[in-house]
Amino acid sequence: MTQPARKRLYIQEVSTRDGFQIEPRFIPTAQKVGLIDALSQMGLAKIEVTSFVSPKAIPALADAAEVMQQIRRVPGVEFSALVANVRGCERALAARVDEINIVMSASQTHNRANLRMTCEQSLGVIRQIVPIARGQTAVNASISTAFGCPFEGDIPAARVMELVDQLAALGIERLALCDTTGMANPVQVRRVCAAVVAGWPELTFTAHFHNTRAMGLANAVAALEAGVDHFDASLGGLGGCPFAPGATGNVCTEDLVHMFEMMGYNTAVDLDALIGIALTLPALVGHDVPGQVMKAGRSSRRYPAPDGTESPAASLHRRCD
Amino acid sequence: MTQPARKRLYIQEVSTRDGFQIEPRFIPTAQKVGLIDALSQMGLAKIEVTSFVSPKAIPALADAAEVMQQIRRVPGVEFSALVANVRGCERALAARVDEINIVMSASQTHNRANLRMTCEQSLGVIRQIVPIARGQTAVNASISTAFGCPFEGDIPAARVMELVDQLAALGIERLALCDTTGMANPVQVRRVCAAVVAGWPELTFTAHFHNTRAMGLANAVAALEAGVDHFDASLGGLGGCPFAPGATGNVCTEDLVHMFEMMGYNTAVDLDALIGIALTLPALVGHDVPGQVMKAGRSSRRYPAPDGTESPAASLHRRCD
Repeated sequence: MTQPARKRLYIQEVSTRDGFQIEPRFIPTAQKVGLIDALSQMGLAKIEVTSFVSPKAIPALADAAEVMQQIRRVPGVEFSALVANVRGCERALAARVDEINIVMSASQTHNRANLRMTCEQSLGVIRQIVPIARGQTAVNASISTAFGCPFEGDIPAARVMELVDQLAALGIERLALCDTTGMANPVQVRRVCAAVVAGWPELTFTAHFHNTRAMGLANAVAALEAGVDHFDASLGGLGGCPFAPGATGNVCTEDLVHMFEMMGYNTAVDLDALIGIALTLPALVGHDVPGQVMKAGRSSRRYPAPDGTESPAASLHRRCD
Repeated sequence: MTQPARKRLYIQEVSTRDGFQIEPRFIPTAQKVGLIDALSQMGLAKIEVTSFVSPKAIPALADAAEVMQQIRRVPGVEFSALVANVRGCERALAARVDEINIVMSASQTHNRANLRMTCEQSLGVIRQIVPIARGQTAVNASISTAFGCPFEGDIPAARVMELVDQLAALGIERLALCDTTGMANPVQVRRVCAAVVAGWPELTFTAHFHNTRAMGLANAVAALEAGVDHFDASLGGLGGCPFAPGATGNVCTEDLVHMFEMMGYNTAVDLDALIGIALTLPALVGHDVPGQVMKAGRSSRRYPAPDGTESPAASLHRRCD
């Protein structure tokens, strides 16, 4: 008797882009390359390596071309980069990325704050980029604030559907629904994800959550149950959106992988090795990170049973439920 | 047209027992009473006030009788206390608790470590307590390590069912399934909760989760979807099990309420006021607490839109998805 195959889920690492872009301390290029080379051995489906934007705008990622050039390419792992315009697209293509990730927001106010354009202007940029990239690399569109905007509030599911429709019409085949500031809840996630999966079965959808209000993994389960099988996550939970002070970062990769594997899914990720890399992050970035499994250990962790020689008082002191 | 009634969920606060019992600093009685009196105005269904165990064993809760005597009773709110034996039960009854909570573990090793008895001896204690309490107060049995034991590992669903059966036979009508060290995952929670709800529809089941490995709210959603409507939680996420070093605490009450309300459920809790109380906790206990909504604010929080006068570079620096 063979076991039934566990359903495959695709884990996409964003820490070196979504995480590092807001780190106040510049991570030296060699350390970025070392981290990416370690991550590319972990079974991750994709790594968002960096961002090809103005080095004056995001100094933390000013070494985008060098990083892309120096990393080891590993078969089966896609190396992606974020771009904001045609110039960035051309630089990313020259760096031989496997995927271009272009971001726009579901809400006008966030799009203007984040990209200094209207949503229509962002769609115009994407219209220019898709034919340039075609045949050379995949293109993913990330829809920010898809589950809520910190300026405008609720984003109707119909607005997300409208954008998916417009992006599909431009030739986009990969789409990420991003909960940029952690406003999504599981009921909403299930409704929106089920609608886009049913409406555009030919597209590949990624769920991109932040753990701002402790719902990150609950939202991931809701997306999974709605038919999404690609998930963005960030090692150690690095990242976050600077528009929302006090907010914790992206869903933590090793916490997400740990949950999915416990639930019986196949992430293809070497979890113990990934936790080992996560444990190097605080030294790399110079501060603690929000990941929890790296601190508590896997659920399968065993503690030695108390030997029975301690006093009843010491034992009682531990009463827990 | 009236809106359909939102389904009612019952939120049960455990911070002053499950949280305070492991605080190294004694919280003065007046401050405990002040916190409980504030919490009893919030719409919580139950407050686990304290523990009637040996004051030598748990010095943090040595003032159990004084606290019970000094708090204001609020109609509609149950005031519960944990007990470990007949003597504790009698003290709790003298203090006029509304509910006695008696704890035992699903695993022998944890029961022995936590209570210095076998599971069979714990069942014997419960057999003594139920008739003493009957007619005076409700009795809840909390099954620790119901989803995994840090010493023994997996706990089969059949073991939980066996214990529920034995406890129901002793006259227990309220049962909490406790994920003592945060080992549960949503698939397991759904399976176990659905089984007990279907098997014993006449009993009231509480889900008691810890957020040790970031799955607390995901597990709460799974229990909810399996038919559980009573949830233990701890203000600010206070608490934890000292057997599992590095572990974060109980599921955070205001984070849980925030999620359930966003999902369209009626918790009856005044969330804004509850967050206000949570914000007083760090000063009370002398350290930071893990709650996230108290830091990030509710999802409905709005930020002023940027005024458009900042430099493009400053804006680009914020690129987020």
